[in-house]
Amino acid sequence: MFSSIKPRLFLRHTKKFTIGILPQNQFNITKYSTQKNLNNSWTKNSKFASWGIIASLTSGFGIYYYFKYNDPKTLSALENNVEKPIRTREKMEQYIKSLQERIVKEIETIDNKKFYIDRWERAQGGYGISCILQNGNVFEKAGVNISVVSGELPKPAIQQMKSRHKELDPSKGPFPFFAAGISIVMHPNNPHAPTIHMNYRYFEIEKEDGSPLSWWFGGGSDLTPSYLYEDDAIHFHKTLKDACDKHDPNYYPDFKKWCDEYFYLKHRNEARGVGGIFFDDLDNKPPEELLAFIKQCGDSFLPSYVPLVKRRMNTAFTAEEKQWQQLRRGRYVEFNLVWDRGTKFGLQTPGARIESIFMSLPLTARWEYMHIPDKNSREDKLVQVLKHPKNWV
Amino acid sequence: MFSSIKPRLFLRHTKKFTIGILPQNQFNITKYSTQKNLNNSWTKNSKFASWGIIASLTSGFGIYYYFKYNDPKTLSALENNVEKPIRTREKMEQYIKSLQERIVKEIETIDNKKFYIDRWERAQGGYGISCILQNGNVFEKAGVNISVVSGELPKPAIQQMKSRHKELDPSKGPFPFFAAGISIVMHPNNPHAPTIHMNYRYFEIEKEDGSPLSWWFGGGSDLTPSYLYEDDAIHFHKTLKDACDKHDPNYYPDFKKWCDEYFYLKHRNEARGVGGIFFDDLDNKPPEELLAFIKQCGDSFLPSYVPLVKRRMNTAFTAEEKQWQQLRRGRYVEFNLVWDRGTKFGLQTPGARIESIFMSLPLTARWEYMHIPDKNSREDKLVQVLKHPKNWV
Repeated sequence: MFSSIKPRLFLRHTKKFTIGILPQNQFNITKYSTQKNLNNSWTKNSKFASWGIIASLTSGFGIYYYFKYNDPKTLSALENNVEKPIRTREKMEQYIKSLQERIVKEIETIDNKKFYIDRWERAQGGYGISCILQNGNVFEKAGVNISVVSGELPKPAIQQMKSRHKELDPSKGPFPFFAAGISIVMHPNNPHAPTIHMNYRYFEIEKEDGSPLSWWFGGGSDLTPSYLYEDDAIHFHKTLKDACDKHDPNYYPDFKKWCDEYFYLKHRNEARGVGGIFFDDLDNKPPEELLAFIKQCGDSFLPSYVPLVKRRMNTAFTAEEKQWQQLRRGRYVEFNLVWDRGTKFGLQTPGARIESIFMSLPLTARWEYMHIPDKNSREDKLVQVLKHPKNWV
Repeated sequence: MFSSIKPRLFLRHTKKFTIGILPQNQFNITKYSTQKNLNNSWTKNSKFASWGIIASLTSGFGIYYYFKYNDPKTLSALENNVEKPIRTREKMEQYIKSLQERIVKEIETIDNKKFYIDRWERAQGGYGISCILQNGNVFEKAGVNISVVSGELPKPAIQQMKSRHKELDPSKGPFPFFAAGISIVMHPNNPHAPTIHMNYRYFEIEKEDGSPLSWWFGGGSDLTPSYLYEDDAIHFHKTLKDACDKHDPNYYPDFKKWCDEYFYLKHRNEARGVGGIFFDDLDNKPPEELLAFIKQCGDSFLPSYVPLVKRRMNTAFTAEEKQWQQLRRGRYVEFNLVWDRGTKFGLQTPGARIESIFMSLPLTARWEYMHIPDKNSREDKLVQVLKHPKNWV
């Protein structure tokens, strides 16, 4: 497998030489017309080759040569040859990349500190771009990750999906899959500014010819304050509702409920935060329409959150308030490690990038034995809302 | 069910009045001869009544009266009437109580701060005593808990045990169970002093008449340093080996290996610490012999750990060393929430006391993105041992 080798120029000898370029830091080779033929011809020999990054060594015909290629000037020249992506997966990949860029830029302006940007490849197929800001001026930890991975679906994952996707018969597996998603978690320093989470993903299970056997969208966004500001919760929900309502009047009420149920710590009998929207296995409309909805949601990330963080990031706070925030961060860790399906899926996926999965964890957290806030305190006011989720809009 | 009602004086009217006393803070009623007859007669009417705390309301014969009874003088008088316990479960319960007392006393002397002691009852049956020391002079957080619980085994727990206990046919359940155990976790302030964990438990699945259908012991003890001191690891392992060798020459090698395998973070490819011993489902010798072994292990807790903490608790340390300890605490949280079977069992058990389960979590923890220690640093030296567990004795 070449999947763990840095991008190179590939030469392939079949009936005639076909030349393809996998330039450094630009993996989406289907964008390049020079690559397209190579990609098509590989498909015959390798079930992994459908999106061109992984070349199977089992292919008996080819002779591969590779050497490092990283001249940025030549790359720019190639950019002009871009063909419009045609498949949903490619559109999703392009969208999450541009969204990541926009969000990173805006948060850098607010924090006045740069994100640390990390591009990585997954040995079993795929890549990701992790952008992390740690110990910032406004954010204790903020992560904006995208990942575009493919490979074979591990058995536990098939088992987990089977009940919802009847076409996945574990005895007929393993199934090749493709997943492209964006994941965001931001933990501000100030205990009065809420933590936010957003994640949107497109998932595809492939037939042998690379066309989708099954596909769906999933994701959501939820807000986790340490101190309850009703105005903040209302603004957040209203922004999400507006995005949903443009596509389907049922989306917001359905996905708000789903969010309250999903982001719930059963062992504590409390919600993680004041909710938002959450959905999975969304495939009941044409992919074009659903992708438009996903884009609307993704585009509403900044308007839903930036006003809140700007409003609270300079609020004065006490050591006790900071400590309460740390205890709430502990709950955040509990949810992510004990209940979150995405984290579980990640931990089960061979070769998953643990550092990217765990970027959602706060920088610091705290667990105190039997910490119960005083009745009617501000802390108690939050807990009451977590125990009895309410409708904000 | 009276199980959630505080201990009272019970009067029961059958052929004649039988009087039993469940004094405040002393639940082990089988110790009282005045209670024994009552206990025996209840057994007929209630499958829960075998150890006398839970009285089923389904019993058609009795008329119950109860009132609060908490005169400590009368309690002391009753203590003199103690009968020797006869069953393994009662011996285990007595032992873990006395061990808890000894350990709490010794740790209080070292820390110069008192434990917070909490007695609780479980609505579904049973009780526990949680002793917690938080923000101490030596310990950031130390917990010494015992619990003696019974009830019906939840389905997920039966599923989990089925492969190892063939007699548990989920279709024939639910099964009444009894479990008595002691759990200890101590996280010192000083990054040079190691965290310790110890847990020993006795588990029984009951037949309808209250006699055991299946029983076993489990437990272990392991050491988790932030900085590697080989002498400490050797002392710890040697103490455990000596305890094991008095009972079976295979115990230490078998249980050391089991410990390395169990306390392992698969998603990180590293062990939690420098190991110790771990075993489960131990039932291959008469219960008397195994209980003697468990006692030997429990008795070696203080000698295995106290010399290490005394040696390191005053070592000077830097802010960077403290921060490294916090990152290691993050790993501890990951293990407990993601992999630990005991925690999973607890989170699945209806009515489990979450605060007691989570006393194992450190007071504070930290997650940094991509923190990799410098090669050959002291931090790296620890990581290398965690990646490649070694034999210490």
